[in-house]
Amino acid sequence: MFREKIKVLDCTIRDGGLVNKHDFDLRFVRQVYKALTEAGVDYMEMGYKNSKKLFSDKEFGVWKFCEDEEIKKAVDGIESKTKISIMVDVGRVDVEDVKPKKMSPVHMIRVASYVKDIDKAIYLVNNFADKGYETTVNIMAISRALDNELNEALHQLEEESRAQVIYIVDSFGALYQESTEFLVKKFKHILKTKEVGMHAHNNQQLAFGNTIEAIIHDANFMDATVYGLGRAAGNCPLELLIGFLKNPKFDIRPILDLISKEFIPLRERIEWGYIIPYAITGMLDEHPKAAMALRNSEKKEDYREFYENLTAGLD
Amino acid sequence: MFREKIKVLDCTIRDGGLVNKHDFDLRFVRQVYKALTEAGVDYMEMGYKNSKKLFSDKEFGVWKFCEDEEIKKAVDGIESKTKISIMVDVGRVDVEDVKPKKMSPVHMIRVASYVKDIDKAIYLVNNFADKGYETTVNIMAISRALDNELNEALHQLEEESRAQVIYIVDSFGALYQESTEFLVKKFKHILKTKEVGMHAHNNQQLAFGNTIEAIIHDANFMDATVYGLGRAAGNCPLELLIGFLKNPKFDIRPILDLISKEFIPLRERIEWGYIIPYAITGMLDEHPKAAMALRNSEKKEDYREFYENLTAGLD
Repeated sequence: MFREKIKVLDCTIRDGGLVNKHDFDLRFVRQVYKALTEAGVDYMEMGYKNSKKLFSDKEFGVWKFCEDEEIKKAVDGIESKTKISIMVDVGRVDVEDVKPKKMSPVHMIRVASYVKDIDKAIYLVNNFADKGYETTVNIMAISRALDNELNEALHQLEEESRAQVIYIVDSFGALYQESTEFLVKKFKHILKTKEVGMHAHNNQQLAFGNTIEAIIHDANFMDATVYGLGRAAGNCPLELLIGFLKNPKFDIRPILDLISKEFIPLRERIEWGYIIPYAITGMLDEHPKAAMALRNSEKKEDYREFYENLTAGLD
Repeated sequence: MFREKIKVLDCTIRDGGLVNKHDFDLRFVRQVYKALTEAGVDYMEMGYKNSKKLFSDKEFGVWKFCEDEEIKKAVDGIESKTKISIMVDVGRVDVEDVKPKKMSPVHMIRVASYVKDIDKAIYLVNNFADKGYETTVNIMAISRALDNELNEALHQLEEESRAQVIYIVDSFGALYQESTEFLVKKFKHILKTKEVGMHAHNNQQLAFGNTIEAIIHDANFMDATVYGLGRAAGNCPLELLIGFLKNPKFDIRPILDLISKEFIPLRERIEWGYIIPYAITGMLDEHPKAAMALRNSEKKEDYREFYENLTAGLD
C-alpha cells in the first residue's frame, strides 16, 4: 500500500508510559527517537502534558508532564525530520502551560476526548491551533459511542474545530473489521475538510488488521508503537505497519535493531501484549482495568472465573 | 457473525505437532478433545497419517501416523459431537493404510497439497471419498501461487474431485486482507459446488483478521488452534474465533479453562507466537524455516542481521 498522504505516528513512549507511570529514562527515549528518525517515521509522541496541580511528579515520570525542557533534552543533537507530538486529556491540562509553538520543540498536540466532552476538546484544540501547533482530536472508547451522539460530535468537529485530523480510538480493542469500515466511512463522510486517523488496541490481535482496514477506506494517520508496547494488550506494532507500507521513505531495519536491543530486555521487566484477560475485555467491549487488576493478583491465570465474573456483572 | 453453515475445525494437535514432533501425550490430547467437545467445536484434527515406511516411529510421536487405534484411545469414553479429522500430505501416505470409514473413528480426511501436486491430491481425495470419508483439499503456500496455475487447479478441483471443501492455506503468514478477499472471491467464483475454507498463520498478527475477512466473503470452514499453538508464529487463536462467532452452540469457557491449565504451562516449554523473525518471513513471503533455525541459534535476537541476510538472498 503506497499512498503519499499516509502518516505514521509512533506513540511508544506515550502509550507505553501508561504501563510504567511514564518513567522511561532519557537514554531509552533518545534511542527510540534516533531509531524512529532513521526509520522515517513522521511523528513521535512523547507523553501527556498533564497539570502538576493534578498529578505529583514524585509519583510519575517526566513524560506525564512533557515540559518543553525535558523534550529538548531528548532530541538535543539528533538531526531529525520526525516531528514531536504530545497528548493532552480533556480536564487535565492547564492551557497556560502550553506556550506558543515558536517557543516549543513540540509540533503537534493531540487532544484525547470522549464523545461527551467534545465541546471541551474543541475549546482546547482551537487554543492550541491558535498558538501555531498542528492539532488532532482523538475520540476515545469509540466502540461504545451512540451513533446519534457520535454524528453530532463529528459535525461539531467539522464545523467548529481547527483540528486537522480526527482519530478513531478503539480504547477497548473491541472493533472488528466491519465496524472499523463503518466508522472510517462515517468519519470520511462527515469530516470533509479533515483527515481521519486510527489508533487501535491489540486485545484481540486485530490492531494491525484494523489499521490496514482503516487505510483501505482512506484514513491517512496511523498510530503504532514499537513491538506493540502499550497499556494492557498494547497497540498496532510499528514494525508490522512499516513492513506493510510501501512508501520507500520507511526503513524497518532501525526498528528491528531497537527491538533486539531495548524491547526484548524491557519485555522481561514489564508485561504487555496478547494475554487472555485482555482478549476477554476486548470481546466484551470493556475497559481493560479489571484485567489489569487480575494480572496483578494471584488469580492472574484464572481466565474462566474472570470471564464469568465479568459477564455476570453485565446483568 | 452468525451463519449456521460456518464450521470450526481445531487443528491444535495437528499443527501444534509440528512444534514437538507430534509427541503430545494421551492425557493432553484427551483434555483438548474434552474441551473442544464442551465448547461445541465442529472438528478436531489429530495429526498426519504418514507412512511408517517414510518416517520412524522412534523419532516421531503417534500423531505423525494417526493410526485408528491411537485415535480410539484418545476419544474412548468421551461422549462428543466433535468429529475427528486427520491430514495427509501428497506423497507421504499409503492409501492402503486408510480403511473404509465404517471401520475407523475418523470422520474427515484433509489432503494438503501445493498447486503443482493437485492431480495427486485429486487422486487421494477421491480415494478417501470413495471409502466414505468427508474430504477437503488444502492448497498450501497460496501466497506464492501463480494466478493461471491456481485457476486451473481450482477448475480441476471443481470438475474432477469429490472434495467438499477447498481451503486457502496461508502457509507463510503473508496475506493481508485485500489478498484474502481476492482469493476467497476467486475460490467462490470457480468452486460452485464446494465450500471454501481458511487456514491462516499468525506471522504478522493477521491470522484472526484474515479469518474474519474470509468469513465476510462467505468462506464457511475455519481453522483455528487453542491459544494459537502451531509451527513458528502459530495459527488463528480458537478462543478469539469462538468469541467472534455468535452461534449459540459455541461456549468459550472450556477453552479458557484449557488454556489456563494446559497451555500456559506448555508455553514455558515450547515456543510459538508473535516473534520478530517469523514476522519478517511473513512480510517477505518466505517459509519460516530460516527463522526457526535462527531461533535455535545463539543469534536468536539478531533481527536486523537476519532481515538483511534474507533480503540479500532474494537477488
